Formats: sequence, C-alpha cells, structure tokens
Amino acid sequence: MNPTLAWLQAPCRPIDQQAAAAAQARQDRLTKPRGSLGRLEEMAIQLAGMQGTDRPTPDPVRILQFISDHGVAVEGVSLFPREVTLQMLYNIARGGAAVSVMAKAIGAVMEIFDLGVATDPGPVPGVRSERIGPGTGNIAREPAMTEDQLERALAIGRTAVERAVEEGARLLICGEMGIGNTTPATALACALLDLAPARLTGPGTGLDVQGVAHKAQVIATALELHARPEHGPLELLRRLGGFDIAASTGAFIRAAQLGLPILVDGFIISSAALVATRINPGVRDWMLFAHGSAEPGHGSMLEALAANPYLDLRMRLGEATGGAALVPLLRLACVIHQEMATFDEAGVSEALA
Amino acid sequence: MNPTLAWLQAPCRPIDQQAAAAAQARQDRLTKPRGSLGRLEEMAIQLAGMQGTDRPTPDPVRILQFISDHGVAVEGVSLFPREVTLQMLYNIARGGAAVSVMAKAIGAVMEIFDLGVATDPGPVPGVRSERIGPGTGNIAREPAMTEDQLERALAIGRTAVERAVEEGARLLICGEMGIGNTTPATALACALLDLAPARLTGPGTGLDVQGVAHKAQVIATALELHARPEHGPLELLRRLGGFDIAASTGAFIRAAQLGLPILVDGFIISSAALVATRINPGVRDWMLFAHGSAEPGHGSMLEALAANPYLDLRMRLGEATGGAALVPLLRLACVIHQEMATFDEAGVSEALA
Repeated sequence: MNPTLAWLQAPCRPIDQQAAAAAQARQDRLTKPRGSLGRLEEMAIQLAGMQGTDRPTPDPVRILQFISDHGVAVEGVSLFPREVTLQMLYNIARGGAAVSVMAKAIGAVMEIFDLGVATDPGPVPGVRSERIGPGTGNIAREPAMTEDQLERALAIGRTAVERAVEEGARLLICGEMGIGNTTPATALACALLDLAPARLTGPGTGLDVQGVAHKAQVIATALELHARPEHGPLELLRRLGGFDIAASTGAFIRAAQLGLPILVDGFIISSAALVATRINPGVRDWMLFAHGSAEPGHGSMLEALAANPYLDLRMRLGEATGGAALVPLLRLACVIHQEMATFDEAGVSEALA
Repeated sequence: MNPTLAWLQAPCRPIDQQAAAAAQARQDRLTKPRGSLGRLEEMAIQLAGMQGTDRPTPDPVRILQFISDHGVAVEGVSLFPREVTLQMLYNIARGGAAVSVMAKAIGAVMEIFDLGVATDPGPVPGVRSERIGPGTGNIAREPAMTEDQLERALAIGRTAVERAVEEGARLLICGEMGIGNTTPATALACALLDLAPARLTGPGTGLDVQGVAHKAQVIATALELHARPEHGPLELLRRLGGFDIAASTGAFIRAAQLGLPILVDGFIISSAALVATRINPGVRDWMLFAHGSAEPGHGSMLEALAANPYLDLRMRLGEATGGAALVPLLRLACVIHQEMATFDEAGVSEALA
C-alpha cells in the first residue's frame, strides 16, 4: 500500500462496553416494561457505547455533502441530464434541496463540497471547492480515478472529519449528489460482494425496465474491465468508485479512528461503508444505519454489513436525507434515556417475579 | 341504538381530494426524482387532504392520555401488579414516564385523564378526574361496562376532541395506561375479526409462554360469555372493552366528524380504531398509522384496518409513545413539502423524457 494511505489501517477506537452496559442497565430500570421501547432503547445504548457516556446525544450533527460528477453518466445510466449535478449544487447551497430543508429543520451543520462537478462553477457561497477533477473517468472504459485522485478524495473525507471533531460534532452523516452515481455504487457492491449486476442494479432516479437492463450491462462491462481477484477494496474503489464514495470512505475510517459515531445514509453511502469496513473492519462498530433504501440492491449491501436499519420509508434520494430523517428519533431516544424516571425514583412497582 | 349515542353515526367530514391532488402535484414538481422521498411524501399528501390545505402541519399536536383500571387484571393477565396503574398516573403527570418525556420533547399538549383507576387518588395536579368507576368489570365474568358507563366513556372522548379542536389542535393522538389492558384489546379484536385468542394473544408487558397461554384462556372465557353474533361493535365494546378503549373510540369518531387528523398509536389504541371504523366507516379516512407494535396480534388488526404503519421500531409500551415517535417525521415531511424548491424555482432540469 502507498505509504501515504497507511492511515487507513490505523486502529479504530474501541467501543466503551462498560458505558453500553451501564446504558442497558439504566434502560432496564426506567418505568416501562423491560425492552418495551424497542429500537429506541437500542439507539440510546449504541450511542452510549460509542460516546463512552451515560448521557449520549447525536448533537451537534455534522453532515458532509459530497457533490461530484461521474464519467459513466455519458453511458445514459440516469434519467436526468448530467448538468443537474451542478444545478443541484446551487440548489443545495441555496436551501432548496430536500437535504437543505431537512438540515435546517433538524439543526445540523452541513458542509457542502464540490469534489469535481464537470464544469467548475468557481466560488459558490456555502460551498467548499475541493475539486479533484472535472468528474471521474467513465468506469465502462477506464478507472474512475488515478491513484493521486483517490488519495486526495480519501484525504478530503479525513480532514473534514478531523475538522468536525475539533468543532465538537457528535454524529457524522455523509451525503452525496452526482448524476449517475448509483452506477459506480452498484458496480463497487457487485465487485466486493461478488454478485452479478442483474441482481443489484436498480432504477436509481427512476429508470424503466429497459433502462435498468442497460445500466446493468454498463456495470457488467465495468466489472469485466476492473474487477480482478487480485484487486483489494482500495483498488476497486479507485477503479469503480467516485469522488463522493471515496471521500465518504475516508471520512468513515477517520470517524471510527477518532470515535465519532457514523449514521450511514442510503444506497450510495452504503457502498462507501462497505469499502471502509473491508479496508478497516473496526469501522463497522461505529456505524448506525438510518434506513433501508427503495433501491433494490440496498438489501444485499445491508446484509453484508450485518446492518438492520431503523427506518423503512421507501426513500431513494440520497443527499444524506435518510440519515437526516433518523436524527429526530435519535434525539428522542437520548432524551428518553436521560429524563425518564426509574422505578425507584417514581415509586412504581416492578414486574412480578 | 340508544338515542344519546346517535352522534356516533353522524357523517364524517369528507377528505379534500382536491387539496390532496394539489399536494401530490407539488411533490412531483419539487427538485428530486419523482417519488424519491417515499413515505415522507405520502405523509404530507395525506395531511394536506385531511386539512384541506397545501400547507399541512401536525402542529399543534394534542395527546389524550386515558388512564384506567381493568377488572380482568385480577385474572393474572399482566406481569405487573394492579397498583401500577395509579403509580404510573402519578409518574405520567410528574413527567417521569416515557410519554411525558416525549410529549415535552416534541412540544405536544397532553391531557391526562383518570377515567377510573381502582383507587380514587383525589385531585392530582395535571390530571383531569373524569372517573367512570373504580375500573371496569372483569370481562371473564361480567361485561366491562354498564350502558351508562359506555356512554360516559364515549362522551369523554368526544368532549376532549371538541375542546382540542376549539383550542386549535391539528393532530390527535390517543394514548392509554392501565394494567391488563392488552387483554380487553385482544378480546375485542378477536370478536370483531372473528379470530381465535391463540392467534392474537401476546406477551403484553412481558408474559412468558405459559403466561400468554393463560391470558388466551381468559380471553376465550370472555369471548364465550360476550361474543354473540347478534352483538354489534358498540355492544362488544361495552362487554369486552375498557374505559380507555371506549374513550378513544369516541374521540376518533368525533375527530373524523370535525376533520381532525388522527394518528393511531399501537396495539390497544388500534382496537379502538377498529371499533370506531366498524361503528362509523368514514372514520378510517382520517387515520394515519404511526407504528407496528411488537405485540404479535397488531398485524392482524392493522391488516383489517388496511393500514400500513410508518414505523417499525419494535415498540410495545402504549401511552401514545408510538404516535409521539412519528410526530418529528410528520413535521419533516410537512416542512419539506412547503420549503423545497421546485424545478422551475431552482432552475434544475427535469428528467429526460
């Protein structure tokens, strides 16, 4: 491995099992039948173990929004024209996109990155220009990234997380926007899970049956070109991924090393979660999974990650919107954990033996 | 039917189909792939149709918390002693219960009712004393309520909803607390759905296998005594229900008549939803379903109601906690609906033909 990438394999912080056990014990003393708050209890206990405290909280929430173009879009794998990536960058920055409205509503700090929209927009208020190139290479014909580009994308994610931690963030959500990016995400998942494109390829923004078949064919071509047994997860990420997926991978690995809980969004971001855990398995302990996407391949990715997401709202938008949707429930879970009375405090009789 | 109960069958307000269609059309113009926000879109569209507006909102939220004892508790159908109902009344009123913490966190106004705890606590700050009796009759031996008690319980729900509407509430959640109350709820569901107790009976607060078998036997005894083909839903409610279930039934029917959207909580409250829709089928149009309970019989009740609940968090606590958990997502759905930019506004290209 390139020595400048050695940081990817530095150990992750261990989960504080004692804090998790204390949180479980507290849940069992709260005035409710044991376990009756179901997965709200699980959320509080997981966060308590990650944050090493009996007062877990998702706040402040940091959203990293990675925007970039994907060379493979020229193969006609999306329902939307490629210029939509740039248009949506403006829309996200101006507050009109779904994630903009949600981030504001949940009070999350969002950093928006131009990692490489096809046309350089120059300075845009609210957007960090960290352009790696004018989009990735077309994976049906060439690798998505050079080694240097991969390294830069990973480092951007790493640095963003270091900044978030310095600024006090307690929960990380990565999001992405980039026309065509379900194609690299699917290709990467196929390569890592050794599954056929026909099994994982879905409609993305809304392709019809023929569109999905064409997309699966494009992915098969890319896999033929790039997916070799000798390639590890990092090389597969370079060949099949995207700037967004690579930056999220770097962000997740660094978050787990620094002990920042990760809330995994949907389909695209799960491909980054998959790569990150293949590169550094300790990352998995730091992940909560927000939702199951309506994109059909998500199920296989979640299964490979041994993930049981909290929400199933048939969302398939990306942009961190699935992650953002769970934040109010994480907050409720934490406030319940902290503020409910115990049987002793309330003078409530416990269950009969 | 008793003429003082004729109000139960007054027509429900019709849903504003034009407002729902306008909301759907707006969702399709927002800057996202069509349908990609999944059930968040559905929430906004449903509320828009109920509220007859393109600016739907769940706020202000009104929670009606119905607390009462159930005579059948003496049959040993719960893991908790009967005095817990009164202890939990104090705990809910003082802010220590799960729903107290959640109601405060989501900014909902909660009215707490003593409909008939076994021992009259006298005045309790924050609790409306509207006692119908010292608990219901033991349904394994006698009807739960007299006709007069049933009428009072229904009227309490009706009046509470009229007060909520006068005070500007835009969303109704009914909750309940009462040791033993999964037993009447299950018995009522068995009678209305013509299903065997063995099929619907579950652990409630946490019974083991033997406890569940005993509970199913108690329910079978109650059904033998009360469930006759000649009994309509109202008579079954009187014989097998509880003050909490009857008050919720009255509340739901009145809410649908006045056009107040209903967010149905979990297992117990779904039995009230079932009775309400059997008495007055138009009520169904006014119901959103918050969550699928971990109590196994809930699935059959939801199916009979043609309900597809939004959350599955393995909750089984009651107290309106399932309803409260969905409120932040309803809010997100509404703010997204109102604040996202359209394709035109944002200058974003639409999907290719």
